[in-house]
Amino acid sequence: MRLFVSRPGLSLFPDIRIVLVETTHPGNIGAAARAMKNMGLASLYLVSPKAFPHQKAVWRSASAEDLLAKACVCQSVEEAVAGCRLIIGTSARERRIPWPMLSPRECGRKVVSEMGPDHRVAILFGREASGLKNRELQKCHFHVNIPTSQAYSSLNLAMAVQVICYEILSARQEDCVEAQNAPQKWDMELATEEEVEYFFDHLESTLVELAFHDPENPRQLMVRLRRMFSRIRPDQMEISVLRGILTAVNQLCQRSGQAEKSD
Amino acid sequence: MRLFVSRPGLSLFPDIRIVLVETTHPGNIGAAARAMKNMGLASLYLVSPKAFPHQKAVWRSASAEDLLAKACVCQSVEEAVAGCRLIIGTSARERRIPWPMLSPRECGRKVVSEMGPDHRVAILFGREASGLKNRELQKCHFHVNIPTSQAYSSLNLAMAVQVICYEILSARQEDCVEAQNAPQKWDMELATEEEVEYFFDHLESTLVELAFHDPENPRQLMVRLRRMFSRIRPDQMEISVLRGILTAVNQLCQRSGQAEKSD
Repeated sequence: MRLFVSRPGLSLFPDIRIVLVETTHPGNIGAAARAMKNMGLASLYLVSPKAFPHQKAVWRSASAEDLLAKACVCQSVEEAVAGCRLIIGTSARERRIPWPMLSPRECGRKVVSEMGPDHRVAILFGREASGLKNRELQKCHFHVNIPTSQAYSSLNLAMAVQVICYEILSARQEDCVEAQNAPQKWDMELATEEEVEYFFDHLESTLVELAFHDPENPRQLMVRLRRMFSRIRPDQMEISVLRGILTAVNQLCQRSGQAEKSD
Repeated sequence: MRLFVSRPGLSLFPDIRIVLVETTHPGNIGAAARAMKNMGLASLYLVSPKAFPHQKAVWRSASAEDLLAKACVCQSVEEAVAGCRLIIGTSARERRIPWPMLSPRECGRKVVSEMGPDHRVAILFGREASGLKNRELQKCHFHVNIPTSQAYSSLNLAMAVQVICYEILSARQEDCVEAQNAPQKWDMELATEEEVEYFFDHLESTLVELAFHDPENPRQLMVRLRRMFSRIRPDQMEISVLRGILTAVNQLCQRSGQAEKSD
């Protein structure tokens, strides 16, 4: 059971990042910061915001100006999620290749049960008009979808941040009220975002070497493999075993190439 | 079991009124209307708004201008709740005389379980700066309190409307999901037990061929790989991609073996 210590000014969730990707309206950044602070979150990452810092952001943030002042402005999603072990993307639409989905409630519970100084969490929110791009969504372990009316499904960005952060605080309070079991123990640390990306690069180049994958005609091979390994959320030992296998294949390819040359 | 019929343009909750009391900022009225429509609510009551109609309300309502056009402007809370059988008031503070309290989740469930044409529901939201007055709160059957961080507890009005309406829609969907018990949609069938076992055999023989795995000295390699792939629960397409990759490695091993022999 986690101890519920609420110290004014300190974030209840230092290990959760809210990442806003290419936000157009600075007012939405301010309103999102206020929603975060109301729910006890403080760690705001902005990937290439159109206009920031901006007076409208300050005005809409009300008493959450400190979150804007400390916000980390990044050039890429990769930079914003570096070091995170759980990445969740908000997604409005059904995708052609379905991804593991969470409701906001499940998202809150998952985040609260996994978060920690060695297990940072990032939650991505896309552009006001077009959301997250496919390649950004494919970096995520889970997608979270806020339920809406079919008649009008386009939520304001800051409202989406509010709902997700509300479910995080609610999950924490549940946690504190019900004496919950500790999260399942694992024998290895989960791999970091960077380790997993290195693995994907290694996998792709090996499949090219094997002539199994043609980047000119990728079909959906790498997307399917990415989706599959996101479901595993490999630990560090597993990533190292997988990379060992790829290296064995690489060496075989080289030997076989040299043998053919020497023929 | 309630039937889930979603007709565009029609409210999912014709018997629930959202009542905003003496709202100061017209932008908040517009943002509240949008939040309502996103969650399938349409019935907006405004008690003595400071500035309405107003261009800022229209602008913030985005595609929910129809709710503003149909909004019912009243002179008193009594007028706004006339005919309602369940009245709930949002309240930030603890009151001197405790009142029956609901969490937003309990509020959503109570409202959805009670609402009907003969059982109208009103949910009251107070002034931006000072909330509902005691005499207004004492008209309510229940108070609902949105959890917040102690460090900053003052939610924006439209955000509060968003959270409450989100819990109403979520309660309705729980109702429908429990009835249907629908598992998540996936684009492929999960692989059968036999298909997964064939894959493990193929994987092991390939790792032996690659000289990566020695069955005489297995350490825990196959156990770790098995545990990893059990976490995925691969679908049939994924198993077929994985076996395709193994076959490509098998062919390379054979070619490389033949090349060595012909040396």
